[in-house]
Amino acid sequence: MLRFFTAGESHGKGIFAYLEGIPANFPVDFDFINRELSRRQRGYGRGGRMKIERDRVEFLSGVRLGRTLGSPILMAVWNRDYKNWEEIMRPEPGELPPEKQVTRPRPGHADLSGLLKFGFNDIRNVLERSSARETAGRVAAGALCKNVLRELGVEIGSYVVSIGSVKIEETDIQELPLTERFKRAEESEVRIPLPEKDGLFKEEIDRAKKEGESLGGTFVVFATGMPPGIGAHTQWDKRLDGRIAQAIMSIQAIKGVEIGLGFRGAELPGSKVHDEIFYSKEKGFYRETNRAGGLEGGMTNGEPIIVRAAMKPIPTLYNPLRSVDIETKEPFEASIERSDVCAVPAASVVAEAMLAITLLSAVLEEFPASDFNRLKKWWEDYRREVMNR
Amino acid sequence: MLRFFTAGESHGKGIFAYLEGIPANFPVDFDFINRELSRRQRGYGRGGRMKIERDRVEFLSGVRLGRTLGSPILMAVWNRDYKNWEEIMRPEPGELPPEKQVTRPRPGHADLSGLLKFGFNDIRNVLERSSARETAGRVAAGALCKNVLRELGVEIGSYVVSIGSVKIEETDIQELPLTERFKRAEESEVRIPLPEKDGLFKEEIDRAKKEGESLGGTFVVFATGMPPGIGAHTQWDKRLDGRIAQAIMSIQAIKGVEIGLGFRGAELPGSKVHDEIFYSKEKGFYRETNRAGGLEGGMTNGEPIIVRAAMKPIPTLYNPLRSVDIETKEPFEASIERSDVCAVPAASVVAEAMLAITLLSAVLEEFPASDFNRLKKWWEDYRREVMNR
Amino acid sequence: MLRFFTAGESHGKGIFAYLEGIPANFPVDFDFINRELSRRQRGYGRGGRMKIERDRVEFLSGVRLGRTLGSPILMAVWNRDYKNWEEIMRPEPGELPPEKQVTRPRPGHADLSGLLKFGFNDIRNVLERSSARETAGRVAAGALCKNVLRELGVEIGSYVVSIGSVKIEETDIQELPLTERFKRAEESEVRIPLPEKDGLFKEEIDRAKKEGESLGGTFVVFATGMPPGIGAHTQWDKRLDGRIAQAIMSIQAIKGVEIGLGFRGAELPGSKVHDEIFYSKEKGFYRETNRAGGLEGGMTNGEPIIVRAAMKPIPTLYNPLRSVDIETKEPFEASIERSDVCAVPAASVVAEAMLAITLLSAVLEEFPASDFNRLKKWWEDYRREVMNR
Amino acid sequence: MLRFFTAGESHGKGIFAYLEGIPANFPVDFDFINRELSRRQRGYGRGGRMKIERDRVEFLSGVRLGRTLGSPILMAVWNRDYKNWEEIMRPEPGELPPEKQVTRPRPGHADLSGLLKFGFNDIRNVLERSSARETAGRVAAGALCKNVLRELGVEIGSYVVSIGSVKIEETDIQELPLTERFKRAEESEVRIPLPEKDGLFKEEIDRAKKEGESLGGTFVVFATGMPPGIGAHTQWDKRLDGRIAQAIMSIQAIKGVEIGLGFRGAELPGSKVHDEIFYSKEKGFYRETNRAGGLEGGMTNGEPIIVRAAMKPIPTLYNPLRSVDIETKEPFEASIERSDVCAVPAASVVAEAMLAITLLSAVLEEFPASDFNRLKKWWEDYRREVMNR
Repeated sequence: MLRFFTAGESHGKGIFAYLEGIPANFPVDFDFINRELSRRQRGYGRGGRMKIERDRVEFLSGVRLGRTLGSPILMAVWNRDYKNWEEIMRPEPGELPPEKQVTRPRPGHADLSGLLKFGFNDIRNVLERSSARETAGRVAAGALCKNVLRELGVEIGSYVVSIGSVKIEETDIQELPLTERFKRAEESEVRIPLPEKDGLFKEEIDRAKKEGESLGGTFVVFATGMPPGIGAHTQWDKRLDGRIAQAIMSIQAIKGVEIGLGFRGAELPGSKVHDEIFYSKEKGFYRETNRAGGLEGGMTNGEPIIVRAAMKPIPTLYNPLRSVDIETKEPFEASIERSDVCAVPAASVVAEAMLAITLLSAVLEEFPASDFNRLKKWWEDYRREVMNR
Repeated sequence: MLRFFTAGESHGKGIFAYLEGIPANFPVDFDFINRELSRRQRGYGRGGRMKIERDRVEFLSGVRLGRTLGSPILMAVWNRDYKNWEEIMRPEPGELPPEKQVTRPRPGHADLSGLLKFGFNDIRNVLERSSARETAGRVAAGALCKNVLRELGVEIGSYVVSIGSVKIEETDIQELPLTERFKRAEESEVRIPLPEKDGLFKEEIDRAKKEGESLGGTFVVFATGMPPGIGAHTQWDKRLDGRIAQAIMSIQAIKGVEIGLGFRGAELPGSKVHDEIFYSKEKGFYRETNRAGGLEGGMTNGEPIIVRAAMKPIPTLYNPLRSVDIETKEPFEASIERSDVCAVPAASVVAEAMLAITLLSAVLEEFPASDFNRLKKWWEDYRREVMNR
Repeated sequence: MLRFFTAGESHGKGIFAYLEGIPANFPVDFDFINRELSRRQRGYGRGGRMKIERDRVEFLSGVRLGRTLGSPILMAVWNRDYKNWEEIMRPEPGELPPEKQVTRPRPGHADLSGLLKFGFNDIRNVLERSSARETAGRVAAGALCKNVLRELGVEIGSYVVSIGSVKIEETDIQELPLTERFKRAEESEVRIPLPEKDGLFKEEIDRAKKEGESLGGTFVVFATGMPPGIGAHTQWDKRLDGRIAQAIMSIQAIKGVEIGLGFRGAELPGSKVHDEIFYSKEKGFYRETNRAGGLEGGMTNGEPIIVRAAMKPIPTLYNPLRSVDIETKEPFEASIERSDVCAVPAASVVAEAMLAITLLSAVLEEFPASDFNRLKKWWEDYRREVMNR
Repeated sequence: MLRFFTAGESHGKGIFAYLEGIPANFPVDFDFINRELSRRQRGYGRGGRMKIERDRVEFLSGVRLGRTLGSPILMAVWNRDYKNWEEIMRPEPGELPPEKQVTRPRPGHADLSGLLKFGFNDIRNVLERSSARETAGRVAAGALCKNVLRELGVEIGSYVVSIGSVKIEETDIQELPLTERFKRAEESEVRIPLPEKDGLFKEEIDRAKKEGESLGGTFVVFATGMPPGIGAHTQWDKRLDGRIAQAIMSIQAIKGVEIGLGFRGAELPGSKVHDEIFYSKEKGFYRETNRAGGLEGGMTNGEPIIVRAAMKPIPTLYNPLRSVDIETKEPFEASIERSDVCAVPAASVVAEAMLAITLLSAVLEEFPASDFNRLKKWWEDYRREVMNR
């Protein structure tokens, strides 16, 4: 079992990821983790802060001489800008002048609910933690999980399918293997699997920007190489589909999650939805279709795991939204804390991280070895076993 | 915190729900729970077994003289048909003749993955637990949670939106309050909020039946009356949107979950997606729209919680699907274990239960919980507090 | 990971054990479980109720044709006497006449604290769940865990060391192997490892009975055959010593837990407390002493696990204790609900169950767990691996 | 519910505490936390390293302008000596020359079991995490919990009772209130409640030092001011006595835990063990004795919580212990990594921290308010309610 938590405020000292349960003796790929952090920061349509950040991971515990110790791993992504925020973000006691307190809740954010729940006077006490900056911690931890999964033959990737009203048609990419879609998405400024169409997407973003709008979109996140039987049908909270749904829906601004055909499957007759079962000596049991998105009965079925998610537009837009000051109760038009127009490409990278954490957690419930070498051996024994049924 | 689990096999002695954490002194409405169980069994398009079942709850522990004890509640929904299955389902040791073993995995079910994971020879060892019969336990526990929530002013309901290719247009129901949609759905044979359109839906089901097909569909499940601030933005696994997504996606055959606008919100510009904030002395802070589905930043915002889910067609259909015998490795055409054409109305009832369990669990993480009277008092204090900010 | 809970009230329908996580395909020994249940009911000094009970387990789920299914196991120990209690214990609504309500809290029981916590008027709402009858569920679940551990070469046993002021001297048994002490204890009416001294212990109990007193005592519970490395030093809540301490201290009336030398070790110099390390080709690393009780750094070290526990005298005694009526606030002398003089032998059997559950849980966090055959194979691989370091 | 974990290696960058669930708006007393850290480092008989450390806490997240945010709190106790250890402890990849690897397991430590479990070659990979240095994180988190409990009227303290063969007699302190014992212990070099007897204890330590020995001992840790009804009798893992036992036994080198009379109670007849119940208008229900140590039926009963623990002698002693090199399999006499003779005073401070974390966790399960002010109000309502029964 993995235990994974993040800590840290957006303009505080840093964002931190606590990750416990990674087997010992795993050789950590530091560059890979840093590249993942920078993937989160890219994408056409991001505002100014992304340029400042250039996140890098520092391991505070759990890794020694390049290898995991089996002890809790604490990762820091320090905030390079903290010194400019120290006065209003420091842990030490102090009073802020009223004009530095945030009293204007922004629609679409945690601001108002958080204020009421926690009994705050300053909305900054909410927004610093609800900010999507927190996902740096998710990506750092997810990168390490991906790193482990890769050594087990599991690859995770994603690509953007739509931004606002512009989208990639399924028919345009159906011939491309998932890994190829991912490879191409990595070359696209908006992470689409057809980078030659970047222009259309960038125009959509530019148009939104000009209109003072923000945009959401949809993306696919997938995993190849998972053997059948990870997750379990035996209890509601062991079903891997439910756990994946939680992990993805818990990402800031995500409002929808589908597995395989998802909502489209609800319109089709049964014969067009289920994946028939075949067998060959070379492959063992296999499918020729993957409408289930790799999950049946809450377990992996050996086919790629395919998840689609919907992100709402960023709630902070130039085009102001009406709200009410919490002190004066006067209406106002919501101010802008941050100016990205579209963060769908970044969200797809975060979703890869959450999928990696969820899958590795489920793998470690089935193969809970303390030593990575033992895990790998058992994993391969199991692959052989299910192959030779 | 609630702990909720089910136990039991489809043709075993019964389905059981373990529910721990319900405050003491709550007066249980037995009839209500039994009505909920029978709601799960209704719906046009169900096969023969539903007629046998007529489920009723028996409390085995945790309730005395009509009131909860604060101790673990164990509920049984006994299988009235067990005596006919005893020979092949009994716990006592015994060997089954090979012809009574199930060796033919059905596409779309847990059968094959479960077999490989657990190292079984008889697929019945999987299908008895992966069966949707398990949801009787979810509905029993969910009914008790609903019962508690109702006393706190929270109402949960659902309605079907589409079955196969036939659907209710949003524009046709937008004037109807949620509770009215629910009320009407209760009068519909397919649980749609416009029972006068039942005919269209029943035709779709009849057509599918004639063609040997099965059908999925979509439905809405909602909760009214939740105050703002339940759930938390502070950690990924405390976000209520993620927890709801898990709870709903963990229901058998559910492949998609949306909150509020969901996937549609991904196509719209920010100004059309976020819910502006208003204030009046009578209502406190409020919204005039509810595109967020009642959840912002992983917390309730005081508006109704609105979740939409997609169910795939039932994987067992007359129109046979190809598969492979696990012993002989010979291809065959998948047999029928059960003959419902469409279970979308039932799934919507199960989703109500899962939403109720999830919401009550989150409520009990915020409010003192050992005594229902104390809970109620402090719940009302809190409502007043957030109202008067 | 195991999930283990009990449910049920002392005079309710029965006591139930929920146990999730037992690997599939394990052949359950029903007679063994029933024998364990009856071991809990024996022991010189028990009152009348023990004769009525003669507990037997019924599996309600999770076991089919003698083997585990990998799905949640629900065990029932039905209360044979329920019909006599139905009027005051039934789940269905009803009012009890005031004279049937319990308003007199007994010192040493959960009565008063439970009443205040849950806001009850009738103390029966507390005592029915706090009663040691609940341990029937622990023993049933523990028996199944023992059954599994035995197949892995791990044996669990216990013996009583003292009752009241009479005790077995360490020097009298130090030559006896643990398993021999256990075997002899099974032949003793008070579960001591020197049954020839039963007379002394029975006299102590008889004397207490005559004086209207009750007696506590101490016992040892142990496990042989655990390989090194189960549990972990990496986090406070993964340390196996802590988890064992919780499991044992959570048994009704247990007030002290020691591992290995325990409190005696606190008086000795370091050179008399630590177990030196030796090596031979045949045994691998080994010890010639076991003062640590098989646990170092929160992990098993390959030596037998040895735990000693202290049980307080049963709080219900003929010799009355002063208390206060909760309604009238009048003092009274506490009445007797149950008349055992000494339950130390029974408690030692319960402690075996709790140790078994705790150890199996830790084993299943280290070893692949869905299929018992796979678990066994990898367990033996591991044993070989640590043996051949 | 609190989530509490530590991270960090003994000679790594620092020790870290992750603490989630502290209500918002609590004013943190930084000096108090630092004083607690220094209390852990004091005590006659500590070796050289204690002088280097002088630990101080840095809040990395969860606290802003002196108050908690309700978000996860991450505390760092940086290792001032890390630069001297960087070469062998750095996270970055690198090979150590064989002579810098630790291949000699020390009896009484996690060394050998950890090596086998995790498949390591260098014992440093175990000992860096199993070291008692980790308790700095426990004390930091515990200090914050104590800080919160104090505002609720709950005080936690401890005192040492014995070191090696020298002890304080119960009769010598029975007239002193617990808080007075604590106050005096704070003035003693060995944390005994009769500082005038320090000389005897210091002689014992000096003698052990001269003989190349180490010493263990026993101590009492207590809490005053807890109302009745915290914890629950309803499930084995909700019993507060079990949870306290786990928390204390999980401390490095602790081998025994007692509550109230503990093992002594096992020798006495029932009439000498249970605490009779009295009532007065001023005090509500109360006791004149506290043999139960404040816990009945797994719940607080309103009397002080009293726990006694046994610490084994530090396993690293000058007087060498025999062991075996893991590479060569040659016997050797165990080397000294650290030179404290006695750490019982420090352990008592750590136990205070663990008791504080456990009690606050149980309090927050009963009063799970997000806002400290709301918690405090509910807490006082509850106190009044139970007082006025």
